[in-house]
Amino acid sequence: MASNKPFPKSFGLILFPGFEVLDVAGPIEMLNRLARREGYHDMSLSVISRTTDPVNPGPIPPYTAGKAFLGNQLYLPTHTLESAPEIDVLLVPGGFGAFDLHKTNLEDYVQFIRDRYSGNNGHQPLQYIISVCNGAGFLAKSGILDDRKATTNKDFWNEVAAYGPKTHWIAKARWVNDGNIWTTSGVSAGADGVIAWMASLIPKELVDDVVNGVEWFRAKNADNDPFAEIFGRRDIAPVAE
Amino acid sequence: MASNKPFPKSFGLILFPGFEVLDVAGPIEMLNRLARREGYHDMSLSVISRTTDPVNPGPIPPYTAGKAFLGNQLYLPTHTLESAPEIDVLLVPGGFGAFDLHKTNLEDYVQFIRDRYSGNNGHQPLQYIISVCNGAGFLAKSGILDDRKATTNKDFWNEVAAYGPKTHWIAKARWVNDGNIWTTSGVSAGADGVIAWMASLIPKELVDDVVNGVEWFRAKNADNDPFAEIFGRRDIAPVAE
Repeated sequence: MASNKPFPKSFGLILFPGFEVLDVAGPIEMLNRLARREGYHDMSLSVISRTTDPVNPGPIPPYTAGKAFLGNQLYLPTHTLESAPEIDVLLVPGGFGAFDLHKTNLEDYVQFIRDRYSGNNGHQPLQYIISVCNGAGFLAKSGILDDRKATTNKDFWNEVAAYGPKTHWIAKARWVNDGNIWTTSGVSAGADGVIAWMASLIPKELVDDVVNGVEWFRAKNADNDPFAEIFGRRDIAPVAE
Repeated sequence: MASNKPFPKSFGLILFPGFEVLDVAGPIEMLNRLARREGYHDMSLSVISRTTDPVNPGPIPPYTAGKAFLGNQLYLPTHTLESAPEIDVLLVPGGFGAFDLHKTNLEDYVQFIRDRYSGNNGHQPLQYIISVCNGAGFLAKSGILDDRKATTNKDFWNEVAAYGPKTHWIAKARWVNDGNIWTTSGVSAGADGVIAWMASLIPKELVDDVVNGVEWFRAKNADNDPFAEIFGRRDIAPVAE
């Protein structure tokens, strides 16, 4: 259902070593289509990483599997975590690199998300934050999923849920919306989540145009998630204090 | 049905200004998953463009619509059309930039495809070529779709088919395989086409693992294409000589 709120303008996309390509490209493709449309030309995107050096989806050292294939996919950030402008909507992909959260090697990203979501240090608070796959782990570690419902990748369900012991993790969900936070299931689900988010703000006809133009096999309902069953996943309630 | 042929090792991906992000990322995501698996670590990828300058999916001048969003998505090629190594499998995405084919501004790309497909100038002929969306326009202009069946984007069906007057264009097709050429329908169809191509070479269990890991809503059959009807498209037979 479309609202009358003005559509956000300033988008940010987080990149880190070992991000998942389709976690990024699914949502971005849908937003690219919109940005080309009359009335949405003022949308802007900042691609944000630790440095402005090229970042790739390849294995994180000491791992090497697939490096000659994935390591040559080089994405050039436009901003660092420090230089990023004010943002209305932050996209947080997942990927095998996000499991580095275990080792706190991504604490600067977690802090960025915490600060920007809440509007700490004089920043404008985010209007929306959208995570894909185990990108939800960043949100959970930042604390913003505490006392919220959320979902994440079904393959690595328990590993990611462990980052958010105060979160109610919904298993049979292509995406979950709680307040201004949208979390989606694994990889391809990111596109469906972003389509659903767009559909909450813009006319249905425009959403249909985007989806059909991309020839996307859309999950129209949040609970259209066959993968929860394929991987045998159940909801995980918050751990009692 | 998996064959006993050895799986190809050397992959090439063509990038040009104004490429479509998901045309690239759908197939690449599926191949990334495979490259991470035991037995496929020797897969390599070259990202090939006119120069090694960053290339983006944004509008081609004089167009500007969406530039502040799409123009900041910067992909860094690893090779030029001239420096590209020998390739087993070439991936050719589409995108709004590919309509520059009308103006012959992409003739160097067309020549590259013609040379590499056929093994001209001492090159090893490609084992396979796979196009996504209106990337089929490059193949058609190179002549390699003459007397072949093919498909392409359903939204811009007639425009792309016009590049290949000697091609039999199949409308209700998520993908078409003819010999060692795989053409797919628009954008998202690229991933389904590459999954089908992989399934012709590797065990079913591994394909299922990739698809489920990516949580992809897969089109299992080549004729699973609701978009031909949505856009009202019909087959286009070759023009009689």
